Parts: sequence; C-alpha cells; structure tokens
Amino acid sequence: MAKKKEKPVILITNDDDITSKGIRSLVEAVSDLGTVVVVAPDTPQSGMGHAITIGSPLRMRKVTLFGEIDAWQTSGTPVDCVKLAVDKILHRKPDICLSGINHGANHSINVIYSGTMSAAMEAAIEGIPSIGFSLLDYSDDADFTAAKQVVNKMVSKMLQGNLEKHFLLNVNIPKGSPEEIKGIRVCKQAYAKYEEDFTERLDPHGKKYYWLTGEFKNFDKGKDTDVWALENNYVSVVPVQFDLTNYELKAQLEKTKFFQ
Amino acid sequence: MAKKKEKPVILITNDDDITSKGIRSLVEAVSDLGTVVVVAPDTPQSGMGHAITIGSPLRMRKVTLFGEIDAWQTSGTPVDCVKLAVDKILHRKPDICLSGINHGANHSINVIYSGTMSAAMEAAIEGIPSIGFSLLDYSDDADFTAAKQVVNKMVSKMLQGNLEKHFLLNVNIPKGSPEEIKGIRVCKQAYAKYEEDFTERLDPHGKKYYWLTGEFKNFDKGKDTDVWALENNYVSVVPVQFDLTNYELKAQLEKTKFFQ
Repeated sequence: MAKKKEKPVILITNDDDITSKGIRSLVEAVSDLGTVVVVAPDTPQSGMGHAITIGSPLRMRKVTLFGEIDAWQTSGTPVDCVKLAVDKILHRKPDICLSGINHGANHSINVIYSGTMSAAMEAAIEGIPSIGFSLLDYSDDADFTAAKQVVNKMVSKMLQGNLEKHFLLNVNIPKGSPEEIKGIRVCKQAYAKYEEDFTERLDPHGKKYYWLTGEFKNFDKGKDTDVWALENNYVSVVPVQFDLTNYELKAQLEKTKFFQ
Repeated sequence: MAKKKEKPVILITNDDDITSKGIRSLVEAVSDLGTVVVVAPDTPQSGMGHAITIGSPLRMRKVTLFGEIDAWQTSGTPVDCVKLAVDKILHRKPDICLSGINHGANHSINVIYSGTMSAAMEAAIEGIPSIGFSLLDYSDDADFTAAKQVVNKMVSKMLQGNLEKHFLLNVNIPKGSPEEIKGIRVCKQAYAKYEEDFTERLDPHGKKYYWLTGEFKNFDKGKDTDVWALENNYVSVVPVQFDLTNYELKAQLEKTKFFQ
C-alpha cells in the first residue's frame, strides 16, 4: 500500500450506530491517513455477533453527519454494512477496514458476540486487512482521547506494513488518560466470560419477562491474555482468525476413529 | 457419562424455529437416548450468528408441541435459548446440547454466520459437549430420514465417549437417501464463501431497497475439507474451537515488534 500514490481508502463501520461518539472518534483519528468512507448501522447493533440480514430487505441512505466525508447509514447489521459498502458503495474493496471505536470492552470470549469484531472479521474474510477497536468505557460520552492516539499510531503502522491477506486484529484500549497507558501488548484471547443470570420481572399484565445480565469471570490466569494486559493498563492486541477448525480435536477423532 | 445411572439430559435447540421439521426430526432421532428438553426460538433466526439479546427483554413460554417432551419457545436468538435453558429451565448444565437439524448447509465459512452453530458453540463455551447438525436441503419439507440415522449414530457414540470439556462439532449431512451416504469424514473448515451481490429494487414509493444474494465459491481445493466431503456424499464433521486467536500472526507481530 505504501507504494501507491493515491490515498488509501479506509472503510469505517461500527455496531453502536452511526451517531455514536465512538465512530466519530475513529473517523477523526484516521482522517489524515486516507480517504475515509463511513457505512454504519442506523440503530444500535451491540451483541449482534456475525448476524446478517437474510429474511428482510435492507435500506441505505447517504447522510451528512461527517461533513466532507462520505457516509451512509443502513438498516442492517455491522456485517451487512461491510457487504453493502463493498458491493454497492465502493464497488471495490477498501484498502483497510476499521470498526468501532466500541463503547465498551470486546476482549476474551466477547470477540464472538461482538458486532464490532464481526464487521472487522467480515472484511478480513473478504481479504481486507481489518481492525476492530473497543474502549473499556460503556458511557455514551466516554473520553476517546487516549483511544484516538492509539488508533492513529496503529493504523499508520498498518498502512506502512506489507500485511497478510487476512490480517485481523481485536484491539481493546483501557480507560484513562494517554499517560496512563503503558504500551501495546500482543496477546491471546483469554478464556473469560460472563456467567449468566437472567433477571426475571413481571409485566403490567402479570406475565414474566427476562433481562440478560451476568457477572464477568476470568478463568484464565496467564499473563499473555488480553484480560491481563487490560487489567495492567496495556492496550491489548489479539490477532484473530476465522478458520474455526479445532485441529487438535480433529487429530484426536481421526486417531481414535471415533465415528467408525 | 456412561457410568451414570440416570438418563443423560439432552438440550435441543435450533435456529429455524421450534415449529420446523428439522428440530422435530432431531428430537425424534435422539428421544431414546436420554431425557430430551427443547428450548428454541419462536421465530426463524437463520443468519443470526452469535447474536444475543441485550437491549430488549426476552419472553419464554412452555409449549406442548412435542407431547411428553418438555419444550419452551422463546423470543430470543439461538444463543439466548441455550443461556435461558441453563439458567432458568434446567437450573443445571445438560449433559449434551444438540442444535438443528438445520434446513440448509452450514459448512465452510458459514459456521460463522450460522445460528445453529452459534447455539452449539454457546453450549461448548459453557462446558457442555455439543453438536450442530445441518442437512443440505433448504426446503421446509426436507426429507430427514438419512439425517436422523446419522444423528442417532453420532449422538450414541458421543454419549459413550469420555469427551473433552469443550467438545464441539459442526456436522453437515448430504441430501439423499441413507444408501447414498458413503460414510462420515472428519474435516477442516473449507475457505469457501458467498460472493455477495445485492439485488436492488424500488419500493412502491420509489425508494431503493436491497436483498442480500450471492454465489457460493470454493477457494479451497483440498480433499480434507467439509465442502469436498459433502460434494462426495460423505457426512462432514468439523471439530470447532472458540479460541479465535491467530497464533501464527501473533508470533509474527511479536517477532517483528510490529507495534513498537
């Protein structure tokens, strides 16, 4: 990419929706690095995982939220946004795709539930180098100052590098000021997850309904995990793959002729 | 599990919805192997990936669709169904979880988009050995005769075995009669996917909308993949993992000190 004379095309999406402070911060963080195009959901899509819209049609509308920067909002999921951007807006693959900055953590097992990461993964499947960014602050008015510096540094590096085709990173940024961040750590995904506990309530008609809640538990005590890095004020970088084959179990089933 | 005197508890869910022929076939296929409990979505959830319901409450209702077998329908996604089953219905982990039988293929990259597989993965994350089953026939009235035989054989084997904690399989069954199936092959996930092509239409008010369509393309020519197995009339079994860390890229980023 460094050899190209024209500016790289940077596709930006998210899962919190196009009006969130996180996506605006991401646009601001990289607008000097290339031609930014925004395609993002018109409603919050957190926890949508790798959902796609099959059973209903999608809407798409150009918006002027980002001034000079071309932007579209869609009725689809984050994954739909990437697909629509490539097929109907850019009519080509962007040079890189960035997703986020998510309001809230997407470390450990949450990579699987995250709409932010699913959009990034969709791009990587298409052969577009991609990063999903998340800040460990759930508030609508979170402070993205430190996150923007991290994003700019990482994306600059990414645009210089000779990246592999399916380059995909899950980046989480601790809450706090730029001075509080100790550095960037390449990590593995921790085996840490929410222990579910549904809250049961009665509606005004006396019928039960349930809210998903849960307590976060880390079962992985290693110092090489994203959870450890974040607890120690490092930015966590987990390289992510989409070949979900469990080769160890595959070898075991073959060796024991399990299903013969 | 073989040592237990009581019958194993088999949790069954799907993504096509609780009224589909596929889930009924799955229940029928294993009802002699344990105590079956069904918890499944009340509406189709295909392509929901690993979506969970965070922003709205969930409903759950006991139904009598399966005669003697306890069954609940929920307003949630397949993943929500597994979470609700463990926390609110069984109040314990089932011995195994089965998802499907999906009306249509979930091989190759489709494991990532599949609600069927996400339910199975959710169970595996919880430490419940799990299999997602899919039949290569999208029709509502698909013939599950061969699939039911395969399911019964595989689940019998699964209940005898000393399975590892996060045992998770993606099983696809070719269309056709039992005699046409050549056997069971343990495979890796093929790098094969849909090349998207959105169909653009105008609504009665003259506004554009889009339907996701696409052509399936296999970029993986190996004979060790699920796509190859299915094309050659084998049942494909892909062991699946939920640690998405790309260890190869991790080592490379560490070696080159990419972000230093």
